[in-house]
Parts: sequence; structure tokens; C-alpha cells
Amino acid sequence: MANPDPAFTREEYADRLADVRRRMAAAGLDLLYITDPSNMAWLTGYDGWSFYVHQGVIVPPEGPPLWWGRSMDGAGARRTVWMGEECILTYDDSFVQNPEKHPMEDLAAKLAERGLAQGRIGVEMDNYYFSAAACEALFTGAPEADRVNATGLVNWARAVKSAAEIAFMRKAGAIVTRMHEVIAEMAEPGLPKNVLVAEITRAGILGVEGAWGDYPAIVPMAPSGMDATAPHLTWNDQPLRGGESTFFEIAGVYRRYHVPQSRTLFLGEPPAHFLQAEIAVQAATEAALAEARPGNRCCDVAHAFYVALNAHGFEKKSRCGYPIGLSYPPDWGERTMSFRESDETVLQAGMCFHFMPALWLDDGCIETTEPILITEAGAERLAATPPGLLIKT
Amino acid sequence: MANPDPAFTREEYADRLADVRRRMAAAGLDLLYITDPSNMAWLTGYDGWSFYVHQGVIVPPEGPPLWWGRSMDGAGARRTVWMGEECILTYDDSFVQNPEKHPMEDLAAKLAERGLAQGRIGVEMDNYYFSAAACEALFTGAPEADRVNATGLVNWARAVKSAAEIAFMRKAGAIVTRMHEVIAEMAEPGLPKNVLVAEITRAGILGVEGAWGDYPAIVPMAPSGMDATAPHLTWNDQPLRGGESTFFEIAGVYRRYHVPQSRTLFLGEPPAHFLQAEIAVQAATEAALAEARPGNRCCDVAHAFYVALNAHGFEKKSRCGYPIGLSYPPDWGERTMSFRESDETVLQAGMCFHFMPALWLDDGCIETTEPILITEAGAERLAATPPGLLIKT
Repeated sequence: MANPDPAFTREEYADRLADVRRRMAAAGLDLLYITDPSNMAWLTGYDGWSFYVHQGVIVPPEGPPLWWGRSMDGAGARRTVWMGEECILTYDDSFVQNPEKHPMEDLAAKLAERGLAQGRIGVEMDNYYFSAAACEALFTGAPEADRVNATGLVNWARAVKSAAEIAFMRKAGAIVTRMHEVIAEMAEPGLPKNVLVAEITRAGILGVEGAWGDYPAIVPMAPSGMDATAPHLTWNDQPLRGGESTFFEIAGVYRRYHVPQSRTLFLGEPPAHFLQAEIAVQAATEAALAEARPGNRCCDVAHAFYVALNAHGFEKKSRCGYPIGLSYPPDWGERTMSFRESDETVLQAGMCFHFMPALWLDDGCIETTEPILITEAGAERLAATPPGLLIKT
Repeated sequence: MANPDPAFTREEYADRLADVRRRMAAAGLDLLYITDPSNMAWLTGYDGWSFYVHQGVIVPPEGPPLWWGRSMDGAGARRTVWMGEECILTYDDSFVQNPEKHPMEDLAAKLAERGLAQGRIGVEMDNYYFSAAACEALFTGAPEADRVNATGLVNWARAVKSAAEIAFMRKAGAIVTRMHEVIAEMAEPGLPKNVLVAEITRAGILGVEGAWGDYPAIVPMAPSGMDATAPHLTWNDQPLRGGESTFFEIAGVYRRYHVPQSRTLFLGEPPAHFLQAEIAVQAATEAALAEARPGNRCCDVAHAFYVALNAHGFEKKSRCGYPIGLSYPPDWGERTMSFRESDETVLQAGMCFHFMPALWLDDGCIETTEPILITEAGAERLAATPPGLLIKT
């Protein structure tokens, strides 16, 4: 039984496939095998939490892509992909987490049956869920094939969003805006962190009028005080405290499309250096977003940010943004371009980014970030959360 | 500044390290490099959502383990690991998602500096987050080393839980019990699925008295009707309907320790074949759990289940359980033994399993599962959810 509620039209999936085939031709590939669940979903519609076992999508030289995975997940493929039954290939459950044999032996055999286990086969050498052993087992089983590193090939095809994808991003932006409202409403000294995170998460899944909430590729990060000197800690049951900062890095998600946004909460009067840092980040953000338009490059945006930040007496070493869109755990970035001084990728209308100028201080962090869509007119904010520190006294 | 609230005592971490070193010696390893976040946390205490970039833990021949990761995540390591500052090694942010260079080049250089880039180095060839490219870059940078597949070495060391770990598991069991209570309280025809999932998720993070809720390694799976013929679909905004089944596969989590449990909801009078299937699963579960005691093997448990299930006229092809404990996304299983007819692993007191006899029907699924602890007296249930179908009429 086919997917009763596909995310996109057949025409859009056909366009995506054609785009991937053009990129395969440019890379001289005869076949592509992808494992990143985001790439699998973008190309086929597949949507299930099954990426903890070996699975992937095969793009043969012609015809529709082939979904390949665990036998019991074939049912989920039938419910979510746009291709027909003949495009769903499965392996027996005895291959699952069994040191005696590897699922990739099954994939190699199925490619060979179809005369596809030869030529230049592109694989995502440095993408999620394609293990070193999987790579070895696949090419041991396909000794006539040449292995080509196709990391990022599909990720790059996802960079410019369609009108339908942009509509999803706007819905995700409305959800993250609502999630930040919940923080502003509920945060107060003494509230255990997990209680606040429970309410944020609930708000994210409830969504907003016309947009139900999907699960985020990264759970809320919400460290306080000295823990907020570290970027990727999650939460515990400690109470929020007066005189302390907490940053909230969260995303609204609509049908796997992510709009992340961070804000920093200060309970009480922030110390002067927090306020100065916040002013610097705001000014540098304005300077950077003014450069975020078609024709400019990623490095132009980064350069404008770093110059303005330095002029305010602050410094940041890490990149200040990355592309966003369709994602599965463990990351909501697209892992292609970055806003850094060395990245000369030219911006195009339809690209979406998380402009992410986190500024680490010795005793906390200022995370005030903006999800943006590049339009012909420049950067459009995808979320409506008020800028600046969230101060509750 | 060291971790203000470590999960376990120094003595317990020392015991774990000694156990891993014994396993390394048995495998003839000079050095071990692990990337599974669950293994990293179990050995060092590290706890952060940073596994979307390359990172790992090095177990050298002597002395404490070394945490290695992205520069900005060094701060999170300082806040969570038991080792000192000298054991935290980081790479520059310019290595992050940069096709021009690979973080593993940094790791290889740091091993070489310490005289560790030689001998037999064990790596988790088929574990999460160790990509094919990472493996290649590491051993290209350490040409004198011999690569050894150490997949599962630390996972197996985690199989028998300590008293402190069992206390965490009991707390997680109390949380999942509460989550199922929320389903029983709230489910009714017309309730949008995402609203129910929002409340389940909220309850999981709120936790119960004395146990705050951490994030699960797998989000709730909650498919209804024909979608429930597929095991790993998540949710949407469609209302629950009378005459339809929905299964809920969810976990309570306390400080990364997971107790998963599934129950199947039927709104209205279930058809006869659902009730027959449920009776079969219950009887087969009782038969299997009676065999789940020290000295018996995984296959004895599986065999008892399949025999009893077949006697009731039903059949199941996939395994009926797997070990559980400390986990990070994308999986809450430990990926060592399985309850299947071919697995002769001997059960020991302190092992924990998700006994998971999901029965797929043509028009839905019966998921009635039991998280268990193996004790000298046999299988102890870790959650108190009532057995059987949840029927609301």
C-alpha cells in the first residue's frame, strides 16, 4: 500500500533524481549508494527510525532509485517511498547485528544479480551510518567495482530549496518561535531544568496551528552557568538560578525540515561583560546578514561578522553558520558549506542557513542565532523570536 | 573545572577500565580507539551531543583513557569526564566538515607524538560514527600500525551491570511505567497522534519522584492502523480512530540508562485475531521469561518463546530480544547478544534485556514487551506496566 500522504509531488522527486544523476555524471559515477537518512528521505521519501541498522538507497544508471534495508523495514518503505514494490529490496533478519555475516554481503549480491556490481560506484565515505566494515564488506562482495568517494554529492543537491521545501521551513520557523515563547513564559529561578525542557519539547511536538511538530535531529541543549561554557551539554534536574545564564539551542521541525534557533536567558541583572558581548554579537549579526544575498559568498558573510565583532573587542574562532533543511539525527546541519573565511561558495536564492554566532565567554556563552532564507532581496529571517538576551528580573 | 556530579564512583570507572584492558590483552591489542558514544560514556563519563563530529576515546597500554574531540567540545569533556585536563585532547575547528582535511589526521599525529601510532590498534569497524573515511584517514596517518577490528569489545564489557547501574535501570523503569500510564489516561478517538506523543515525551522528561528524565536514544514509535504493520514509523497529526490499533514503543531514560517497553492500544473492541495473537504472545512471553535465568543461554529463551508461540498457531521470524543499558542515539540496544535460536551466550545475573516479541499481523502489530533484569532468582521485570493489550472502549 503506497504512502497515503507523501511530503512532495512525484514531479519534485523526479527533479531531485534528475539533479542527482547530473551530479553523478559530472563525477563519472555508474552507480550511487547513499546511507545518510536525510539523503535517503530527500530522494525517495523514506521516513523511519531504522538507520541504526544497515540500509541505503541505490541510484542505478536509469529508472527509479532502489530502497534496500532490513526485511521488517520493507513495510515502512512501502508506506513512505514514492517508488513501487519492485524498488524495495530487503535482507533477512539473520543479518542483523550478527558477527558471522554482514548485511552488505546481501547488498553486493543484489547488485550483482542486476549487473550493477561493477564500474565506478560512489559511496558516502564520510557520512553517517556507513561504517568502515560496511564499506569493506560491500567492495569485497563487488570486487570488479571501483570505489569512489561521493560524500556530500546528494547533500549539495539539497542546498537550494524548492518552493514546497521553503513552505515547510516557514512552518518549522513558526514552531521554533513558539518554543522560545514557552521559555520566556516559564523560566524562573528554582524551576528544575528538566521541567522546562519537558515543556519546550512538548511545545515543539504540539507545533502551531497548521503545523504539527516532528522530532528534532538534536535534542535541546540547555546548559547553565559554568556548564554553558561547553556547547553541547543537554540537561539535568538542577534548578535555574538567579544571576546565571542558560542558553537554549533548539529547533522547530515540520516533516523532518528543521529551523534551529538559540537564545540566551539571564535571570537577574546580567554583568557588564555579558551585555557588551551581546551588543557585539547583535551588531556583527546585522553586518553579516546584510551580506547574505545571492552572488555574495559564504566567506563574505563570515568576514563581515568577524570584522564587526573584532571592532567591538571580541573574537570568535569557529565558523558562524551552516546550511539547514531536511535532517535526521545526529545533526541538523547539511554538512556542505560553512560561514567561514575560507569558504568561497556563492550564495543562491533558496538556500537556508543557521547563522550561528555563538560567543564563548569564560563564565558562559552568548548564543543568539538566526535561521535565514536567502532571497533575491537578501536574508529573510525564518523565525520571529525577538533578538537579544532574554532577561528576566 | 571537574564534573560536579559524576554518574559513578572513581572505583567503578577504574573497574571498567581494568575489564576493558583484560579484553584488549585477550585480543592482543596494544591500543584501543572507540567512537560509540555509549562506550565513550561508559568508560570516561563523557556526556554531550557532539557525536555528529569525529571524536573518540583512546585506551593506551597504561594510564587513564584519553578523550579526543573537537576543540569546542573539550569544554564539555572537562565538565563530564573523570580524567584530568592532561587527558583531554582536541583538534582545531578548521577540521570540522572540511573536505580539504580530515580530523583523523590530527588523531594520528597525536598518537605518533605519544609513541602510540604503532602495534595492533583496535577500532570499532562496525559501530556508529566511525566512518569509512575516518578509518582510512587514521591508518593512512599511522602507517606502522596494524588495524584490528574491535567492534563490540567494550559493548560486551557493558553486558553485566553493576549495582549502581541497576539502580539507574530501576529508575528508568519507573519512568517508562509512568509514560505508559499517560497513554492509558489520554488516548481516545479523535486525539491527534502528535498531541499524545507530546504528552508522552513530556512525561518522560519530567520523570518521576527521585528520577528526572533524560532523552531517549530512539524517539517514540507510535504507528496506527496499516502504518502499524511497519515497525519503525514515528508519528504525524492524524487522529486516533476507533476500531484501530496503535503500538507505542518508548523508553524511560535516567542518566542515559534506558528501559524500553512497548504496549499496543486498541480503541474499541479488538477483532478476534488480535485477541488470539495477544493470548499467544502472553503465553509465549511467560514461557520465555521462565527460562531467563543465570546459566541458561539466549537461545534457550528464544526457543521457549518460539515453541510456545507456534503451539498457539503464530510464527515470528525475527529475534525476540536484545540487551539494554547505557545508550545514545540511534539505538538503545547494546548490539552484542540476541534472543535468537543461534545465540549460545550464557546468561548471567546483572544482565538486562528488552524482551521484545513483536508480532506483525497483516493489519497491525502486537507489541507487548518486557524489560528484564537477570537475577539469581530469574527474570525480574524492570517496569510495572500491566501486561496485555490496552483496550479502551
